Amino acid sequence: MKLKDVGEFGLIELIRSKTPRMRGVRVGIGDDAAWVSVKHDSLLFTSDMLIEGIHFNLGWTSMQELGHKSLTASLSDIAAMGGAPAYCLVSLAVPDMTTQQIEALYRGVRSAAAEHRVALVGGDTCAADRLIIDVFLAGYAPYGAILRGGAAVGDDICVTGTLGDSALGLALLAEAGHEASARDRAYLLRRHRHPTARVKTGLQLAKRKLASAMMDISDGLLQDLGHVCRASRTGALVRHEELPLSPAFTRVAGRDGSDYALSGGEDYELLFTSGRQHRRAVAEVARRTGVRITRIGECVAQKRGVTLVNEQGVSLPISPRVGHDHFKGPVEGAKSRHSRD
Amino acid sequence: MKLKDVGEFGLIELIRSKTPRMRGVRVGIGDDAAWVSVKHDSLLFTSDMLIEGIHFNLGWTSMQELGHKSLTASLSDIAAMGGAPAYCLVSLAVPDMTTQQIEALYRGVRSAAAEHRVALVGGDTCAADRLIIDVFLAGYAPYGAILRGGAAVGDDICVTGTLGDSALGLALLAEAGHEASARDRAYLLRRHRHPTARVKTGLQLAKRKLASAMMDISDGLLQDLGHVCRASRTGALVRHEELPLSPAFTRVAGRDGSDYALSGGEDYELLFTSGRQHRRAVAEVARRTGVRITRIGECVAQKRGVTLVNEQGVSLPISPRVGHDHFKGPVEGAKSRHSRD
Repeated sequence: MKLKDVGEFGLIELIRSKTPRMRGVRVGIGDDAAWVSVKHDSLLFTSDMLIEGIHFNLGWTSMQELGHKSLTASLSDIAAMGGAPAYCLVSLAVPDMTTQQIEALYRGVRSAAAEHRVALVGGDTCAADRLIIDVFLAGYAPYGAILRGGAAVGDDICVTGTLGDSALGLALLAEAGHEASARDRAYLLRRHRHPTARVKTGLQLAKRKLASAMMDISDGLLQDLGHVCRASRTGALVRHEELPLSPAFTRVAGRDGSDYALSGGEDYELLFTSGRQHRRAVAEVARRTGVRITRIGECVAQKRGVTLVNEQGVSLPISPRVGHDHFKGPVEGAKSRHSRD
Repeated sequence: MKLKDVGEFGLIELIRSKTPRMRGVRVGIGDDAAWVSVKHDSLLFTSDMLIEGIHFNLGWTSMQELGHKSLTASLSDIAAMGGAPAYCLVSLAVPDMTTQQIEALYRGVRSAAAEHRVALVGGDTCAADRLIIDVFLAGYAPYGAILRGGAAVGDDICVTGTLGDSALGLALLAEAGHEASARDRAYLLRRHRHPTARVKTGLQLAKRKLASAMMDISDGLLQDLGHVCRASRTGALVRHEELPLSPAFTRVAGRDGSDYALSGGEDYELLFTSGRQHRRAVAEVARRTGVRITRIGECVAQKRGVTLVNEQGVSLPISPRVGHDHFKGPVEGAKSRHSRD
């Protein structure tokens, strides 16, 4: 059914009727604002906007995957503060679509929400000439928040999961010249379309006070590490051979493909720094949460900047194509953020 | 200076540097998420998305007015719950613009925030081919929230301020054939471009438990009253001659122009129902907050629907052009929401 047949209020009712009731929600979708109870006086707020043609391409993702990923981007921000997500709102601008498409989008949002016990409590809907999704997420900071500015010289630099899978998956979609077996392709595409926010790992690191600084990797490792270094007034030394790459990544891109791991976007892995005395405890968090954690380098004096070294300790050149800037980058107008890859 | 010269992170730093520090904000703009303290366990969340070419036309509004109005739309939602706004985030998609334009937009956001002691704590920025602003606002519900569904048969129906000024101001911008003196034109345009959220009035009504149901009028009185009636399972009888119209409105549109007052959008006035025993107390709230409150009718049995009557009690026809539906309405693609007027 076309959206114009059910109308704005029909759509809101449709979304409302499929949204499960959850604890803490006094009034969810359908009034002027959502009304909720909160159980801590320390809250985290984040928002992430995704625009068709810039952040995603409907030819390359399903509506359900897109919904899941939209919330995951915000979940990853809360995870990066060491927080616990709680309530989300989805603002949606919709072109001429069917109610089935929008329902699929919300199914994706709800599936990501259910994984992390997040309640969908509101949002806004309007018509537009392209799909725009802005997710707002509120969470708790029961153990305080881990900021970007707390790293100290000598701290280990660690990342969760593997890097570059999402960017390489995107390159496969864009047919950037890589050969991949069906299985590797499926793995990498899934990492691109269905990323995982490391909420439990972030919370454990916060609870046990193991991370001196943390952020999530959404614009590429080196650029995001640069943010941590600037905020912490340190430099960083990253060992190229320590970059955690998935078997599929290595098979498809080889070690030479590490640009994807250094500068690719949308990893949604955690990047954190941690005192050396915590190595055993960090390994324990990895075991308990089932998420790989890899030491990739260490914080050094600020004047040394961010450097990448090989096994012999020799500096490697860093590609100028590092990370992503929405205004300076290759993105212009409606061109794709994806086009950088 | 062009945005692409300062870049995404330069823009974020620019916004951050001009945002005043406020109580309760532990971490504002610049980390993965904002970190704040809250002083009640009862919170309200709302979001409002405005899209260039649909909700606004940059030829008809300044960037500063637009920023102010973007936050006002959300402030009005919190006011309509009887709440106190506290923290906002602004997600922004920006076409090729100058930093001066974006600074003006944020000046407007900050001016609305300062009026209501709201702290701007975060958001998202990205490039797009048109300007999109999505404001998220969190507030407190210290006296509980006033919902749409609490009206009872016999309750008075009241509105704050005057109706239709904004829609008539927009019609003047669109040159819809009205004649107006310079002064009336300035008044009506200001009401369109610089609306006021009735936060203090909403809070007072909540504190003194005077409103059985409340919402803000953003899609036209009759449509929004329909929402209250549906949620409350009542009908409504509205007396045409009681509609509060400003002197400028009456001079420019005459009583026959009341369609603007009945169906025009973006009034951002409060619509509430109140037991008759509270009339004196409601008048006292109007005096104390300096905001006019007018009884325009009463709640009747649901089967009578929403009716408009003249001084003799005779039903008047309701224009089919009532209110606004983003999907069913005259809005299609990038056409203007404004075009309905």
